[in-house]
Amino acid sequence: MIVVLKHGVTEEKKAQLIAWLQALGLKIHISDGEFQTVLGLIGDTSNVDMDLVESLEIVDSVKRVTEPFKCCNRKFHPEDMVVEIGEVRIGGGNFVMIAGPCSVESEEQIVEVAKAVKAAGAQLLRGGAFKPRTSPYDFAGLKATGLEYLRIAREETGLPIVTELMNINDLPLFEDVDVIQVGARNMQNFDLLRELGRIDRPILLKRGLANTLKELLMSAEYIMASGNERVILCERGIRTFSDYTRNTLDLAAVPMLHQLTHLPVIVDPSHATGIAKLVPPMAMAATAGGADGLIIEVHNDPIHALCDGAQSLRPEDFSALAEKIRAIRGIVQ
Amino acid sequence: MIVVLKHGVTEEKKAQLIAWLQALGLKIHISDGEFQTVLGLIGDTSNVDMDLVESLEIVDSVKRVTEPFKCCNRKFHPEDMVVEIGEVRIGGGNFVMIAGPCSVESEEQIVEVAKAVKAAGAQLLRGGAFKPRTSPYDFAGLKATGLEYLRIAREETGLPIVTELMNINDLPLFEDVDVIQVGARNMQNFDLLRELGRIDRPILLKRGLANTLKELLMSAEYIMASGNERVILCERGIRTFSDYTRNTLDLAAVPMLHQLTHLPVIVDPSHATGIAKLVPPMAMAATAGGADGLIIEVHNDPIHALCDGAQSLRPEDFSALAEKIRAIRGIVQ
Amino acid sequence: MIVVLKHGVTEEKKAQLIAWLQALGLKIHISDGEFQTVLGLIGDTSNVDMDLVESLEIVDSVKRVTEPFKCCNRKFHPEDMVVEIGEVRIGGGNFVMIAGPCSVESEEQIVEVAKAVKAAGAQLLRGGAFKPRTSPYDFAGLKATGLEYLRIAREETGLPIVTELMNINDLPLFEDVDVIQVGARNMQNFDLLRELGRIDRPILLKRGLANTLKELLMSAEYIMASGNERVILCERGIRTFSDYTRNTLDLAAVPMLHQLTHLPVIVDPSHATGIAKLVPPMAMAATAGGADGLIIEVHNDPIHALCDGAQSLRPEDFSALAEKIRAIRGIVQ
Amino acid sequence: MIVVLKHGVTEEKKAQLIAWLQALGLKIHISDGEFQTVLGLIGDTSNVDMDLVESLEIVDSVKRVTEPFKCCNRKFHPEDMVVEIGEVRIGGGNFVMIAGPCSVESEEQIVEVAKAVKAAGAQLLRGGAFKPRTSPYDFAGLKATGLEYLRIAREETGLPIVTELMNINDLPLFEDVDVIQVGARNMQNFDLLRELGRIDRPILLKRGLANTLKELLMSAEYIMASGNERVILCERGIRTFSDYTRNTLDLAAVPMLHQLTHLPVIVDPSHATGIAKLVPPMAMAATAGGADGLIIEVHNDPIHALCDGAQSLRPEDFSALAEKIRAIRGIVQ
Repeated sequence: MIVVLKHGVTEEKKAQLIAWLQALGLKIHISDGEFQTVLGLIGDTSNVDMDLVESLEIVDSVKRVTEPFKCCNRKFHPEDMVVEIGEVRIGGGNFVMIAGPCSVESEEQIVEVAKAVKAAGAQLLRGGAFKPRTSPYDFAGLKATGLEYLRIAREETGLPIVTELMNINDLPLFEDVDVIQVGARNMQNFDLLRELGRIDRPILLKRGLANTLKELLMSAEYIMASGNERVILCERGIRTFSDYTRNTLDLAAVPMLHQLTHLPVIVDPSHATGIAKLVPPMAMAATAGGADGLIIEVHNDPIHALCDGAQSLRPEDFSALAEKIRAIRGIVQ
Repeated sequence: MIVVLKHGVTEEKKAQLIAWLQALGLKIHISDGEFQTVLGLIGDTSNVDMDLVESLEIVDSVKRVTEPFKCCNRKFHPEDMVVEIGEVRIGGGNFVMIAGPCSVESEEQIVEVAKAVKAAGAQLLRGGAFKPRTSPYDFAGLKATGLEYLRIAREETGLPIVTELMNINDLPLFEDVDVIQVGARNMQNFDLLRELGRIDRPILLKRGLANTLKELLMSAEYIMASGNERVILCERGIRTFSDYTRNTLDLAAVPMLHQLTHLPVIVDPSHATGIAKLVPPMAMAATAGGADGLIIEVHNDPIHALCDGAQSLRPEDFSALAEKIRAIRGIVQ
Repeated sequence: MIVVLKHGVTEEKKAQLIAWLQALGLKIHISDGEFQTVLGLIGDTSNVDMDLVESLEIVDSVKRVTEPFKCCNRKFHPEDMVVEIGEVRIGGGNFVMIAGPCSVESEEQIVEVAKAVKAAGAQLLRGGAFKPRTSPYDFAGLKATGLEYLRIAREETGLPIVTELMNINDLPLFEDVDVIQVGARNMQNFDLLRELGRIDRPILLKRGLANTLKELLMSAEYIMASGNERVILCERGIRTFSDYTRNTLDLAAVPMLHQLTHLPVIVDPSHATGIAKLVPPMAMAATAGGADGLIIEVHNDPIHALCDGAQSLRPEDFSALAEKIRAIRGIVQ
Repeated sequence: MIVVLKHGVTEEKKAQLIAWLQALGLKIHISDGEFQTVLGLIGDTSNVDMDLVESLEIVDSVKRVTEPFKCCNRKFHPEDMVVEIGEVRIGGGNFVMIAGPCSVESEEQIVEVAKAVKAAGAQLLRGGAFKPRTSPYDFAGLKATGLEYLRIAREETGLPIVTELMNINDLPLFEDVDVIQVGARNMQNFDLLRELGRIDRPILLKRGLANTLKELLMSAEYIMASGNERVILCERGIRTFSDYTRNTLDLAAVPMLHQLTHLPVIVDPSHATGIAKLVPPMAMAATAGGADGLIIEVHNDPIHALCDGAQSLRPEDFSALAEKIRAIRGIVQ
């Protein structure tokens, strides 16, 4: 960690700060420039509160040289992590397609979609049973019944299931869910993350709307530091001033995350854009950009079908897309 | 609600959509323009899923004419809400100063700060016992012990206490906390909001880093629709590309919220800027801009004191600021 | 255009507004809802000042139903525009690779890079002679001499040249430049755009750092409405809170722009990310996402070479990338 | 300047980089940490291209210790700059109110508004003759005629005039304009800035919609380094995800800029919010936050008057506001 002191700091205050840092067990390397003094902190700085140091009156700025994340840091884990879900593998060259409806609506619906996406090549089934909604008046999912229908769809197709957990108290209901999803709004629900670190199930961690890559990695760190190493990261769009799309898909996050961490990184083009027509080009772009997988909304719902579309793709569109995805994977690998 | 159809929609699809909307109990007013057809939906549209309608293939865009929030909508509650906490009142012309340390660190510290801020004119004491931290390795607060120290400080000074609840399972520990704070990261933790709607305690709801005013109001709606009307909104900075300050304090949100809702709106200049020197000017700005109160970090901690500052103000700075705040209030009212 | 009036507007004010709108030659369709009145404006609304109407006291909000852009609107030009530069064609299924150094540094450098990128399959040569720099103390390009070296490189390789014009007074120097680039910082330099609309040369228009797609299209409209229809749009990253990359590449803009306009859309992955290692994955992603071309920085400069990289690719990396790009094009088309 | 090298850099590459930096006349201070090597660059680093160094393969990150701006840096100019316009003074404790219509529309209009704002206490008259418009079809100002009307209004009232220059070729028309405004969209029109550095007139430099404070200061540096020291900075809102206001007024920029530079800083609450009702609270907030002045839109235009408002205030509202502003100034000073 590097601490840049302000111009004109008194020797006394400088000495006090150095003494305090040394008391934390650090060695201090002092470098006096023409205008400012720079302290290099040598040793384990992971428990130095960077915000506190930065806020001190005599400090101009602080810069971490070593990242504050360890469990998910590629520097210490050069090999890609491969997450296994039954026979499905994600990461380390294994590409996965996750598909299914936004919400589980009925047994019939989820079974039908599950069969369709399996036929198109999906390896995992997604479907929301507990739905976070901005408005208290909107449909919030079928909850336990939705999970039950997902289990039936898994039995019928053999596809492992991925579904979102919003409240740690619901964990008993998720006992046999194959992959537990943490939604964007819960990316910094630290108690939830810590609890999920204590179970033995892969976690699909979605990036929050206004969260940096470092914050995403620190949230993965919460899970991993508690003992659960099987974390899959997911880029799903960030909030910007964008006028036409719901969010802005930050695809460069994929290769950047691959540089910083050994965890697999997948992309959700459905939520990122909110527009069905943009899903296939963004799914292909994510694949070409090196993503380890995709999570895509596919529906067979009459009102959607009636009017020819939505954020979700129809099974036949997903099938055509899946074929292109496989062709692109052939080039990227 | 207004639904703008795409150019060249077939009569058949248009009729299907209209039939579907009518089945929801709405009257439809059709207006054919040169390029597009516009449907005016008359009736209770609060349970129409706007996202779903917008995503339909034949729909160009959807516009709500009536806001989706009701409990917190000034249109239906023209009078300012006044939230009472013991003898303290917020809103409706009652201005309140909330002050205290970022974290409760010891009994001695919180009592000392409480006395100092009371002397300077603060009416409520803040202090974090459960602290959300980006890193799992950072200090996360004294938890139950911290709450205990807050109670002692309340006894010593008579100041009601405000502190953050992160996990609904900790609610029993907060039984006699005067105001429960929902932090920015939990603004869309919908299960938490719903539970807080079932208790009889004022809630201080902080705006999330990337949340719009509408989303903030919808979160207040979650609490209020569950039965608890005593919600205080708090602007604490949003995430932008800003290079010098931690967040960007969105002060125009204060008068805008006052137009949209009857709930009191306070401002947190400490977290918004992250820089002690910017706290007094932004606290004065917030007051002049019409805020119903301020929540400010004040410390007496030796390492801070040693180095002359932090995001937190020292008691003497807070005291000088409080005097200016009162003078500005005299002009604004 | 749809004008939503506020709740409780007096009949008198409503009548005044309607009379004023009718005086602009519009037919008004009135729709009274339970809470608000909605006016549908029928006729040519392109010269109604939407901001002005929205700002009126009795108006709640205004929504354009027909976009304010015409010359570049796909609704009126369903066929893709193909821009021709000598024998090179962009758009309508024609994909183009533009490559070259950030700045022209010497005759030797630009000729060498030009030969290398031609060998790798680039069809156009880029190179900055006039460089916009944030600091007045940074190198601002070789100017006229740089243009001279570009001409020499064109002669040696046959590659048409693309270079940025910052100041309309420099136009005479650009007389035989094949494609004139308008940089992101000049996207709303309206006088410059209008002047470029009067010449007969293709314009490469880069999206500004904080500009919406609508604003980008309105800037294209400035050029086209002045008579020059040959505009190529370029997505090059927008400014967000991103912590690792310089900007955030908004790839969904590509298919969205294709829906809105018939103009070709290319992508600049070099400026969008600012990191050489991210250029190949983002170039491949842009291709898979349907871009009509790429503009990529390639260098052969010793200090870069010395230290193995930069935002720019080395010729051998570009050559390997170009091969992958061609393979992906085979799938996308 | 501090250069952090990547983990595992070879001694050879490190030596090459150091040699290259030494060749630029810098002394290098090497600090070897456990994981990384840090180079401290001592000497005049203002002409080191930080982006280039940061992009080198062996470099992890670069941090400037001394800011790249000099002419406008408070470190070298501890005293506030006072800009004089006739008898009006801005900065160093001198507060100024600038008011007038968005656009000059007629001689009658501008003279009437000028008299009204003078009576209310404004010291300078604003009014747009050349208007930047997003759409080529919108009204772009009366141009030379507008300037002529402004001169008449100055004659009638004695108020110096402030108006925007968009194109350096129009400079001859601005010969006797008292303060030349550079609009937000031209903040990085570097040729324009350089030219304005060669004239002897105060420049009002507005912050761009997506520009950092550092970029704003670098643009001021362009003007000052060319010889014109009389620059007034203006915060006028930045682009964010905000849903109700046009832009987000970044008021913390005011005290932050005061820390970084000795130049005066004023605030434009009219453009920042785009909503007349928000102008008074934000004008008061800016004053309480320490701004050196305000620039506010005031109109007397019939269509506005008809409908009771707009982004602009009516003269009577401005007059009431001006009184409150003066009262707040009494407290802030």
